[in-house]
Amino acid sequence: MEQIRNGTYTGPTSGLARGYAQANLVILRKEYAYDFLLFCQRNQVACPLLDVTDIGSVASRKMGVDADLRTDLPRYRVYRNGEFTEECTDILSLWEEEMVCFLIGCSFTFEDALLANGIPIRHQEEDVNVPMYKTSIPCEPAGRFHGNVVVSMRPMPEEQAIRTSLVTARFPSVHGAAIHIGNPAAIGIKEIAQPDFGDPVTIKEGEVPVFWACGVTPQAVAMASKPDLMITHAPGHMFITTVKNEQLGVL
Amino acid sequence: MEQIRNGTYTGPTSGLARGYAQANLVILRKEYAYDFLLFCQRNQVACPLLDVTDIGSVASRKMGVDADLRTDLPRYRVYRNGEFTEECTDILSLWEEEMVCFLIGCSFTFEDALLANGIPIRHQEEDVNVPMYKTSIPCEPAGRFHGNVVVSMRPMPEEQAIRTSLVTARFPSVHGAAIHIGNPAAIGIKEIAQPDFGDPVTIKEGEVPVFWACGVTPQAVAMASKPDLMITHAPGHMFITTVKNEQLGVL
Repeated sequence: MEQIRNGTYTGPTSGLARGYAQANLVILRKEYAYDFLLFCQRNQVACPLLDVTDIGSVASRKMGVDADLRTDLPRYRVYRNGEFTEECTDILSLWEEEMVCFLIGCSFTFEDALLANGIPIRHQEEDVNVPMYKTSIPCEPAGRFHGNVVVSMRPMPEEQAIRTSLVTARFPSVHGAAIHIGNPAAIGIKEIAQPDFGDPVTIKEGEVPVFWACGVTPQAVAMASKPDLMITHAPGHMFITTVKNEQLGVL
Repeated sequence: MEQIRNGTYTGPTSGLARGYAQANLVILRKEYAYDFLLFCQRNQVACPLLDVTDIGSVASRKMGVDADLRTDLPRYRVYRNGEFTEECTDILSLWEEEMVCFLIGCSFTFEDALLANGIPIRHQEEDVNVPMYKTSIPCEPAGRFHGNVVVSMRPMPEEQAIRTSLVTARFPSVHGAAIHIGNPAAIGIKEIAQPDFGDPVTIKEGEVPVFWACGVTPQAVAMASKPDLMITHAPGHMFITTVKNEQLGVL
């Protein structure tokens, strides 16, 4: 954490701080906060809210009381009027007192539960970022925000695909059950070997791609909805919370 | 439904339209909507949101597309500056184009699951409204909204209390698992025979009171937080949705 804060670690966070939940970040000015909060409420599978800060606060009462969300992620992305304009390792110079931080559940959180079930995770095996794809599945719009769901993908042996979905269903606040198994074209993905975010991974003989709604969805939404300024984590470069993965599980 | 809409049925809704989920209603002017939406996000056990309407809309895309939320509840309560001022059977004369409707899960929804598990429900047996109590459990505040949790209570045989909680845990969007079993004083309830809302019910020898967070919580919050105008359902007089109870269940 210290190395992320002071900028000496700037890589992806999958597999880091094992056992602790990771979160997606979206920062917006107050004027956009109601529409975005409503967007998350209406699209809870893609945008499950873990916490929303008070206006101007850079810490999270529930997910990290000592955090500074302007420095504690390895890498950020800045979107201006819907255009991705820059990537940076802190956002101190961009911060405004009227900003609100939204922490959204990340599927990295349920990867420990998959491993505990003896279900291997390809992007960890290949030491790359998880592959993520824009889909043709529309989100429920809210005010200024609209766009399609982004998904993460993990290849699974055919016989393990449903079991995998059951394991992750126990974690609704980090995207829960898979939303699609199999044919990428059915959800608008043209080329499985060319993800829109992250890295491609090997899909072996006898395996099917399994897709989960992904917290990168707000970045696709930002591009479609064009708020004047929106700051997010860089895909795969998450906020590491102080909450244990298992604390987000139900039943 | 037609009898509720035209005002000829004005009684409580527990046990009506068996199989369909019921919802609590909170209506606020747009200026309060962000704080209240955030309050619900931070207090999901007491205020689980089923839907939030677009500003000025009286129908719910998810819970009743043909509804008119100004007429389709048997009884409403009006709070002005934190004071309960009137009860009415429709709110057509109070409606403003800048209002937002919040539909919040109601524990009546999981009563069918209890019955299906052979767990009897005392207030149905005695044909009265469920007893509800203000507690000493604070909600997480959000902007202008703060206050304590209100609970509903159902007496259960000692040996059935935990099983009861497991059954309802499957329904997180209608308050989920019980939040307290046993001693009322531990959560600030002085007199179990005198509920703050609804009616008292018999607690038999060998039974313990089991408490669930309740969607009447916003009414306690309204009194504490004093918005200039807030309209809610009257306790026990809910909005009957077009969604089946089981559709709100998980796993």
